[in-house]
Amino acid sequence: MPRPVVALLTDFGLRDHYVGTMKGVVLSVCPEAALVDITHDIAPQDVFSAALELAASYRYFPVATVFVAVVDPGVGSARRALAAESGGYYFVGPDNGIFSFVFRESTPTLVVELRERKFARSTISHTFEGRDRFAPAAGWIAKRTPLRSFGPPIDNHVSLEFPEAIVSADAVRGEVIYVDRFGNLITNIAGRLLAEPTSRVAHVTDRGNIRIVRTYAAVAAGELCGLIGSSGYFEIAVNRGSAAALLNVSRGARVEVFNAPMPGSP
Amino acid sequence: MPRPVVALLTDFGLRDHYVGTMKGVVLSVCPEAALVDITHDIAPQDVFSAALELAASYRYFPVATVFVAVVDPGVGSARRALAAESGGYYFVGPDNGIFSFVFRESTPTLVVELRERKFARSTISHTFEGRDRFAPAAGWIAKRTPLRSFGPPIDNHVSLEFPEAIVSADAVRGEVIYVDRFGNLITNIAGRLLAEPTSRVAHVTDRGNIRIVRTYAAVAAGELCGLIGSSGYFEIAVNRGSAAALLNVSRGARVEVFNAPMPGSP
Amino acid sequence: MPRPVVALLTDFGLRDHYVGTMKGVVLSVCPEAALVDITHDIAPQDVFSAALELAASYRYFPVATVFVAVVDPGVGSARRALAAESGGYYFVGPDNGIFSFVFRESTPTLVVELRERKFARSTISHTFEGRDRFAPAAGWIAKRTPLRSFGPPIDNHVSLEFPEAIVSADAVRGEVIYVDRFGNLITNIAGRLLAEPTSRVAHVTDRGNIRIVRTYAAVAAGELCGLIGSSGYFEIAVNRGSAAALLNVSRGARVEVFNAPMPGSP
Repeated sequence: MPRPVVALLTDFGLRDHYVGTMKGVVLSVCPEAALVDITHDIAPQDVFSAALELAASYRYFPVATVFVAVVDPGVGSARRALAAESGGYYFVGPDNGIFSFVFRESTPTLVVELRERKFARSTISHTFEGRDRFAPAAGWIAKRTPLRSFGPPIDNHVSLEFPEAIVSADAVRGEVIYVDRFGNLITNIAGRLLAEPTSRVAHVTDRGNIRIVRTYAAVAAGELCGLIGSSGYFEIAVNRGSAAALLNVSRGARVEVFNAPMPGSP
Repeated sequence: MPRPVVALLTDFGLRDHYVGTMKGVVLSVCPEAALVDITHDIAPQDVFSAALELAASYRYFPVATVFVAVVDPGVGSARRALAAESGGYYFVGPDNGIFSFVFRESTPTLVVELRERKFARSTISHTFEGRDRFAPAAGWIAKRTPLRSFGPPIDNHVSLEFPEAIVSADAVRGEVIYVDRFGNLITNIAGRLLAEPTSRVAHVTDRGNIRIVRTYAAVAAGELCGLIGSSGYFEIAVNRGSAAALLNVSRGARVEVFNAPMPGSP
Repeated sequence: MPRPVVALLTDFGLRDHYVGTMKGVVLSVCPEAALVDITHDIAPQDVFSAALELAASYRYFPVATVFVAVVDPGVGSARRALAAESGGYYFVGPDNGIFSFVFRESTPTLVVELRERKFARSTISHTFEGRDRFAPAAGWIAKRTPLRSFGPPIDNHVSLEFPEAIVSADAVRGEVIYVDRFGNLITNIAGRLLAEPTSRVAHVTDRGNIRIVRTYAAVAAGELCGLIGSSGYFEIAVNRGSAAALLNVSRGARVEVFNAPMPGSP
């Protein structure tokens, strides 16, 4: 059996002991697990961004990696807890849509509700199910406990809608869905919607005719560009700078990719 | 022998190489160790918060985990360096009270002064004993070197006082001792002091009659509540928000839990 | 064969999935690797600081550790990708000088260009070579693939100049090259240039006669001092405070160490 991997994604931050405590629990169940952080700096309660980040990263992990994703505004309430298998990977977390964009790429073969008490800690805090319910479940899945042991299959898990880009004759219209640490503006416009992207130009809000290139370094330092980013989505960037700062825009900003430069645009 | 675990807690932050360097040293001594971060974002020199975070997390780790905790304003000075065993776990760090709240839960069975030079690096920096003294000691303990090999037992290690809550006929009175990343205000009022907590109300500074509930989701988004948090202490929170921001309070703020709602309070 | 160690240093931050995704790729190639973060909070595109941090930390890791360092303003462009062996360690990253200060300490025994496609992912993103080129190469090196398998040896890799301190009869003159999380001002003045450092005094910009001591705790809380830091370079610090904040200086600030106190200085 290959070495099990447990990857964690939360909005817990790294200031407090919460993530470390979850890891202690995983290792208590499955001492041989390799633990990897995806990120813990999802904005508090931002399930949508968590779902995006998980979908952008999971397929780069070893097959059978167990992902425990806890951005959970409903912690302690009656919202269900899930475990799922999708695309050869395992997922553990709250039933609030956090796995939506993984499942959009690869329909889950099984989703179960986490109900079996013996795979949770003996006391379950109403404010920290990450520690008492999700981390131990991840540990048991890493030890190859079959998903069906955790509870009954369900087929009505919560799903978030992906904001689809709109394709028309002259342009593809979308929006910024994520701003990364470099200030790159990642959109909902899939690269496959843009044949010959470098023949096109992009607009962001009222800023027009942004060149589309293949690499950041194709434009001068400080200059705006558009390109297909590492997750396959169109993004707006500034070479050696921050597009978010330069354009002063954030999530939800309108982005359009036109088939040809707009005459008279600035 | 189970896989050894070394868990780290410091105020070194993650901006610089310091924590990674300590891990390199641990792995140089004990290559098979699993390394887990509790947190490295303790405010610089805040030994009290470090002691709280360590006490909140250690018992969720596998038995025999080695905790190396370095928040050390006296680095390089004559303050002693310690290794200890308590509750089946091992602890390494400066003698400044950082283990006080672990030892308050579980009296240490042995505390030794780290004196044996062969378990430290050959040169010990006056500004980074985490690298040269504490990390190698943690590695050697993870390899099951008996504590007595490190130096003489001592019985007068430094101890921090826990600010105890005060119980009276009408209320339990305490204070905020920790503010977490979500803005939850964690108090020194142990949950066991509050029988039937949901029949009570809380006051924070001059803000009165805060409802006590079981889960954040029991109140509307943006609304204040009190509840027993995951470490067993009473805390003040805002559902999907920050109590610290809403109330504009920080560590030391007065918190009172009354047996019944105060008539006339806002 | 000892357990392989892969240590990562980037400017990717921890907010996004990038670092976690790289780790997933390393583990996909080399499941038994121990992964260690040096730091991911290098300022975006600051190759110089990355080179300093790597040189300050690498020699504390187990022999044969593979360091993957990605601060890469030229990502996706024609700049070369490298793997190297130096001092018993391995290094993977862009050819932009990021290994300069490691190689200054220990001349590399071999530097090769990463060209062999079979040690990269099948598709290489123009914006994330860390995931598609450097992480898999690190995994293959951790599995003990000989460096010569990755591509042809080169002898003209890019090198950054270290800003050398200037020694004169009365003083050693240098500058601040790094400011750490505590606000310590780390200079380019090697400790070996300062015989009997505690008999000397330091000036920073126009602030004169700063005492040189052995430990932070040798001066009162809030007081400035100079000392030889943990990497062997002279630094300016404030006991339990931040020298950067107190002096309001940053990288590039002028620092002088005089042989004797300057009469009449403040």
